[in-house]
Amino acid sequence: MREVKIALLGFGNVGKGVWKILNMNSEELIKRSGYHIKIGKILIRDINKARDLDVPKELFTTNFEDIIEDDSIDIIVELMGGIEPAVDYMLQGMKRKKHIVTANKMAIATKGNTLIKTSREEGVMFYFEGSVAGGIPIIHGLNDNLVANKIEEVIGIINGTTNYILTKMTQEKISFEQALAEAQKKGYAEADPTSDVEAFDAVYKLCILASLAFDTIVSVNSIYREGINNVKPIDIEYAREFGYVIKLLGIIKETNGELELRVHPTMVPAEHPLANVNDSFNAIFLKGNAVGDLMFYGRGAGELPTGSAVVGDIVSILRNKEKSSYYPCLKNEGYKKIKDIEEVKCEYYIRITVKDKPGVLGEISSIFGKNNVSILSVIQKGKREELVSLVFITHSTLEGNINKSIGMIKALNDSEKIENIIRIENLGMD
Amino acid sequence: MREVKIALLGFGNVGKGVWKILNMNSEELIKRSGYHIKIGKILIRDINKARDLDVPKELFTTNFEDIIEDDSIDIIVELMGGIEPAVDYMLQGMKRKKHIVTANKMAIATKGNTLIKTSREEGVMFYFEGSVAGGIPIIHGLNDNLVANKIEEVIGIINGTTNYILTKMTQEKISFEQALAEAQKKGYAEADPTSDVEAFDAVYKLCILASLAFDTIVSVNSIYREGINNVKPIDIEYAREFGYVIKLLGIIKETNGELELRVHPTMVPAEHPLANVNDSFNAIFLKGNAVGDLMFYGRGAGELPTGSAVVGDIVSILRNKEKSSYYPCLKNEGYKKIKDIEEVKCEYYIRITVKDKPGVLGEISSIFGKNNVSILSVIQKGKREELVSLVFITHSTLEGNINKSIGMIKALNDSEKIENIIRIENLGMD
Repeated sequence: MREVKIALLGFGNVGKGVWKILNMNSEELIKRSGYHIKIGKILIRDINKARDLDVPKELFTTNFEDIIEDDSIDIIVELMGGIEPAVDYMLQGMKRKKHIVTANKMAIATKGNTLIKTSREEGVMFYFEGSVAGGIPIIHGLNDNLVANKIEEVIGIINGTTNYILTKMTQEKISFEQALAEAQKKGYAEADPTSDVEAFDAVYKLCILASLAFDTIVSVNSIYREGINNVKPIDIEYAREFGYVIKLLGIIKETNGELELRVHPTMVPAEHPLANVNDSFNAIFLKGNAVGDLMFYGRGAGELPTGSAVVGDIVSILRNKEKSSYYPCLKNEGYKKIKDIEEVKCEYYIRITVKDKPGVLGEISSIFGKNNVSILSVIQKGKREELVSLVFITHSTLEGNINKSIGMIKALNDSEKIENIIRIENLGMD
Repeated sequence: MREVKIALLGFGNVGKGVWKILNMNSEELIKRSGYHIKIGKILIRDINKARDLDVPKELFTTNFEDIIEDDSIDIIVELMGGIEPAVDYMLQGMKRKKHIVTANKMAIATKGNTLIKTSREEGVMFYFEGSVAGGIPIIHGLNDNLVANKIEEVIGIINGTTNYILTKMTQEKISFEQALAEAQKKGYAEADPTSDVEAFDAVYKLCILASLAFDTIVSVNSIYREGINNVKPIDIEYAREFGYVIKLLGIIKETNGELELRVHPTMVPAEHPLANVNDSFNAIFLKGNAVGDLMFYGRGAGELPTGSAVVGDIVSILRNKEKSSYYPCLKNEGYKKIKDIEEVKCEYYIRITVKDKPGVLGEISSIFGKNNVSILSVIQKGKREELVSLVFITHSTLEGNINKSIGMIKALNDSEKIENIIRIENLGMD
């Protein structure tokens, strides 16, 4: 039996998942890869930290030199997270002709281009299935299985924490703060939940998906971002009344060679498959010009699901080791124009609190009219109190028109408060 | 630019789809495969038949010799359907060192083993993504992306025609016959709908999925099969009352090294993602011991979706052409014991028409009790008519126990009629 030695950089959740999978499925992996996969070294920060897995102590090192200088190690599996030193270590590895697997979304989203270019120059393989949506094979999907397609749009629930929070808010009619506390108790949200809740995490993943699906270089900064912290139970209730469910979506669309890239809370039709993706599950929905509508659904995080993607990549390398040339899809050959968010066309849900006095509905409606925003539905539920909620659903219009209208409504007088604006995607199924 | 010549065997729906995709996405395909893909020959039956696509006449031939003897053709794409001569042509092609792509479920389900063995012996590549679930990349999923997993179960909606019919019956409360007529009008069902409606089509696909997911040789005849023709609107209505939706599912489960293989109408919880797969869409849900729950959803048929799978396979071959060895996952190395349907454990929905007279509920209930079938729910909706419906939902029990009970109930007297028995899968989400 041929043997291959790999090194793990980092031994957190995913590293432990990889360790467990290599052990629990060892027989299958030998049969399927043709190799006995052995972990040769594990880079960690603190050699004295107690570990709950039964890993031989001599595998651990705190010194990357021990790994890079070890010629018996063929594959480096980077699971440290963060940009540096992870990227530096991967580049060093490539230059020493080691194949690289990573699950590091920040590294790929920000330095993916350099990493891919270097892997090509050095003739080593570089896989990163685990960097987006955990165990869901979306990277291989875009790079391999769907190559016969021009991808037209990608719409994903790519952050499990926020999907868990929105699901709880929807099902149990609780506030964002209560749902967040529950997510933290269950370990789905971190003590500082900013990265998830304010959608930074989703932006990194969307950046990777956009560059693969549209074969272009995408900067993280060009992606419009809005978190879920302003979604209120009342918005979820109104959404339900109109036949929608609120999800944090990452959206990529190409129209006339221009890309829309945005992550924000979105109302989706209750009968669309994405509306039924609940709890901490992820899903990626895409449209290809040949395959039509396609959706991948599964665990977007967790030691074993992400480990499944990482070990799958290791096997891909082993199966391709004897190949004379390696042909990854991703080339990032150019830049596509990214639409400014003001140029994006959407339907909108707008909730405003107004003083219940004659003429106010007329005033606001005529502002929308002046700015070419045409109204599909209005709900005003009078309760004979001083302040009432006014909810508008618009027809499709430019975000710029909405922003102009909102500016004018705010200027009307200080008793009108814009409570929330949520974009609507009337996703159909072809 | 390197050029590769392929031949199509057959020019029906999928053949036309392949032709269209090669034209509409030609630039992308060159970039992604490194080759200009040219169709060199197309095998058809009738050279004089009018074709709606603008294909140069000189490409057509009615003689397979023209293809097999043409050394400039590298890849044969078999899209004729049926077992012979398709299998013979593929084997001949392999022996002449041509790589093979097919979308032929019957050929793979019945002769897949010989075809795979021959492709290994001849050192050619053999791909068949299009043979199951059209554009959904489930074959590559099982063969490549999910290799890090032991697959524990695969549950799929793998026939679009029956899913369309059941969806219409559910949404519009119409009969099977009406829904079938609608499906035929829309072109989703054939004039003779037997293969779809009686689940032969699904059995072929399940056979392929089982052999890949569990790396074993599966005979089509070992799969339990039940079509949808006996599903009545009243069963759908009762299902809804109990919180279920009726779907035609293909089910593969491994327990203690034994496989359950069955295709039949099934009640699934209304909130499970499979319950929300509607119209002619397909979906395959699986559980891996690392990745957890995963679902693929998309178009299971149609010229472009299936063409997407076929052209994807062609690109896979082109990307691997310079590889010295080819390592497909599927080895079909042995046989696994297939459970007899009597040994399968399920929950059951049983609808019986009885004469409304004292004691009948007691009689039937005690028969179930004697056979170790314990009852979870009963509904009897008396309408003061002579005949009433009695609906039982059982706890999990052996199918053998159900069959014994049914035999005894039938023997009671001739006024008890077993109207329907539908298995229930209480699919949870981990």
